[in-house]
Amino acid sequence: MRIAGIINNERRERMHILSAEQFSPAQIEKIFKRADYFKKNSSTLPGRKKISTIHQGRQLASLFFQPSTRTRLSFETAAVKLGMGLISTENARENSSSTKGESIEDTFRILDGYGYDIIATRHFEVGAAARAAAVCETPIINAGDGKGEHPTQSLLDAYTIYKSHGRLQGLTVVFGGDLRYGRTVRSLSRILSKYKNNHLIFISIPELQVNDDIKGFLASSGTTFEETASVAAALKKADVVYWTRLQAEYLANPSTIPKGFTLNKRLIKNMKEDAIIMHPLPRVDEIDPDVDDDPRAAYFRQAANGLYVRMALLDLVLSEKL
Amino acid sequence: MRIAGIINNERRERMHILSAEQFSPAQIEKIFKRADYFKKNSSTLPGRKKISTIHQGRQLASLFFQPSTRTRLSFETAAVKLGMGLISTENARENSSSTKGESIEDTFRILDGYGYDIIATRHFEVGAAARAAAVCETPIINAGDGKGEHPTQSLLDAYTIYKSHGRLQGLTVVFGGDLRYGRTVRSLSRILSKYKNNHLIFISIPELQVNDDIKGFLASSGTTFEETASVAAALKKADVVYWTRLQAEYLANPSTIPKGFTLNKRLIKNMKEDAIIMHPLPRVDEIDPDVDDDPRAAYFRQAANGLYVRMALLDLVLSEKL
Amino acid sequence: MRIAGIINNERRERMHILSAEQFSPAQIEKIFKRADYFKKNSSTLPGRKKISTIHQGRQLASLFFQPSTRTRLSFETAAVKLGMGLISTENARENSSSTKGESIEDTFRILDGYGYDIIATRHFEVGAAARAAAVCETPIINAGDGKGEHPTQSLLDAYTIYKSHGRLQGLTVVFGGDLRYGRTVRSLSRILSKYKNNHLIFISIPELQVNDDIKGFLASSGTTFEETASVAAALKKADVVYWTRLQAEYLANPSTIPKGFTLNKRLIKNMKEDAIIMHPLPRVDEIDPDVDDDPRAAYFRQAANGLYVRMALLDLVLSEKL
Repeated sequence: MRIAGIINNERRERMHILSAEQFSPAQIEKIFKRADYFKKNSSTLPGRKKISTIHQGRQLASLFFQPSTRTRLSFETAAVKLGMGLISTENARENSSSTKGESIEDTFRILDGYGYDIIATRHFEVGAAARAAAVCETPIINAGDGKGEHPTQSLLDAYTIYKSHGRLQGLTVVFGGDLRYGRTVRSLSRILSKYKNNHLIFISIPELQVNDDIKGFLASSGTTFEETASVAAALKKADVVYWTRLQAEYLANPSTIPKGFTLNKRLIKNMKEDAIIMHPLPRVDEIDPDVDDDPRAAYFRQAANGLYVRMALLDLVLSEKL
Repeated sequence: MRIAGIINNERRERMHILSAEQFSPAQIEKIFKRADYFKKNSSTLPGRKKISTIHQGRQLASLFFQPSTRTRLSFETAAVKLGMGLISTENARENSSSTKGESIEDTFRILDGYGYDIIATRHFEVGAAARAAAVCETPIINAGDGKGEHPTQSLLDAYTIYKSHGRLQGLTVVFGGDLRYGRTVRSLSRILSKYKNNHLIFISIPELQVNDDIKGFLASSGTTFEETASVAAALKKADVVYWTRLQAEYLANPSTIPKGFTLNKRLIKNMKEDAIIMHPLPRVDEIDPDVDDDPRAAYFRQAANGLYVRMALLDLVLSEKL
Repeated sequence: MRIAGIINNERRERMHILSAEQFSPAQIEKIFKRADYFKKNSSTLPGRKKISTIHQGRQLASLFFQPSTRTRLSFETAAVKLGMGLISTENARENSSSTKGESIEDTFRILDGYGYDIIATRHFEVGAAARAAAVCETPIINAGDGKGEHPTQSLLDAYTIYKSHGRLQGLTVVFGGDLRYGRTVRSLSRILSKYKNNHLIFISIPELQVNDDIKGFLASSGTTFEETASVAAALKKADVVYWTRLQAEYLANPSTIPKGFTLNKRLIKNMKEDAIIMHPLPRVDEIDPDVDDDPRAAYFRQAANGLYVRMALLDLVLSEKL
């Protein structure tokens, strides 16, 4: 997304990464190719040494106004592995000027003045990253803005599917769990709707069913979908199973979490051999550990892919090739 | 400030930066020239690459016993941009041995043993940095000690004035807001009192008027000053307007904050064309955002200057040229 | 300790550092030689520059699930001084997925996927590091697991004795203070029991006397020991005095802390000339500051030695020479 910001009275256009939707399939392919490159080189010591110098002298500011250890570590690891210098804060909300009433715009105009090459930021307010991008010359990467967007999560999800199936089209994708409040389901659905012949199956309980806005953009893009309560039948058809937590805090009656929502060895037995099981993690008990050793269990690979996708994004933004 | 410390039974003199007052005008000029160098090189990618290696193999420990995200990030960014390795803690008070009753001297003697090239530290106790310097061979930079000193803030303030007016003498400087408790007003006044023919105008409300100690050192240095309640008349005469927050928590009756203490487009209309408006930030509502686009609004430049001044200080301490 | 973990369905053996006990005297000697090398090179700028590149392109993840500023800084400084990239979290417990109910195994399987060269971790649960090692291909260094192990502390303690006496055998070592709950006393006793002709003297109060398990392994290793209440007599015989805090929180009646448990100038007067006084720090009032200038006071050197021992361990693990 190129966003026009007025910086020092001069109009500049910069690449900011604010939403998974901003990417065309061509751009997504470019990101995946670059992620492949970093994945390959990361598997050997000479490869790692090679990539460890390509962005020396550049700096990432990793500014988390809301803590999220895993996402932060993943961004920071990506930067350090590319040779970037790292400046980090893990809980800026508590310790920073924002607690004194400073506006998001002021905060980011000041940070913009420190001359980072990229700012990756998580914020507790929806739209914070876009507001930051509007006043910053420094490219902003949205690492999550409240209940809003988390574009790098969607890209790593899509990359994981791509690595397993070699494509992002013609797939039957089952989403299970919290489809209403979960940010990941909405964002990945949007990416899948950019590709042809995908079929989405939504499994949830009444309180946490998929929202009408998702149904809306699926319909308008020509992506077919269905809602069902039959976990077993859905799993059988799936190329991809994307499982999430049913968070008790969203339920009027937590005891309504049905037992069938825990994936286990028995339940996945009839899945296709080349299907994959994904999960944004952390999982609690919605996937039984007896599934972990199944080759279709992709959730740990999925987390690792986050590193390569973030390396790719940092690299493409720095080299202005996206 | 060269401070004699007894380290391993040996007497050593090291440069520590504890107070803005320790610098002579000649040293200040040296710092500003070096800041200019880093500012210039930071504006181009080849320049940035060049400076990014000059202090490779050196380490900054950034030890904040009291959180201050912005000051910390500014110091750390300066170090990383110079190629230094960075070791950081953002809230050592909560997590450290000091909560178990350890003395400041013990804490810093141990840190001194880790062989950093520089320790930048913020502490909640007045005098902490000086106590640290007394037991450390490692150069200490005071990044704020309670209500005490914050020398790099004063230097960046002075640098901002210097960049706009080309001099630190013969200036009319208006200070507005909290003149009693604000650390910045006292420190900048001290620096200005080292130069000739400055005239200071203090605007505040009765509870937050400037202290007698400030009036004392101004008088003894021959710097003229006046106190007034007329914002409009003062702004008209100003070469520099240094505005700060009137913090409600210091007022017996918060409703006594006068409305005239919010700078806005209308109020600054009659200021000189080459005057500048400064603020240590964060601002809340004491400067209206409609001022931001005015070329005289210098507060964001001022914050950015903090980076260059800190790069200059780190560099000069490391090369023992100050 | 080489631990077999099942990673990606493949069996791998990696060096993990989980307990001080895992090391043979030959390995301990190797670690000390390497620590000597880093200590020597750290004393000059050319030496520091030389070692600052040897592990460039490698990364340490410093993951503290429980805060411990000093231990964390020491590990991170060691890594940065060796040229490693650093990814750090100072309080992962509060901010991480573990608060959402994630298992230790899941947390570390994910971190393992980020491809660090070493993970140094402190955790609040006994056994956490060993559980991490069981699922990680990445070498794990235990930086403290609850009331369990803290192997690098024991190694730096042993290294400090070795630097002073040139040997770890034939020594009379006095342990004073909290011998029951203190992790350091147990671990150092275990290391000393691997060497010949050491004699241990334990001084404490009834509530905090040494545990039977320690007496057990000393007896089975042939290390002699005695328990006494006479501080003065014990100090006179000591080659090493290892003093610790009597923590009031462990005492039924805090007023029972005897005054004789504060080491001071007068009390240490009759110690041998080449004896050393150690303490894991922080100290509060169990060692009077008037002891600090005595050449036998080794506790600040001891803390500094932690850096060199950790550099040695990182280096030996990275080069697979341990």
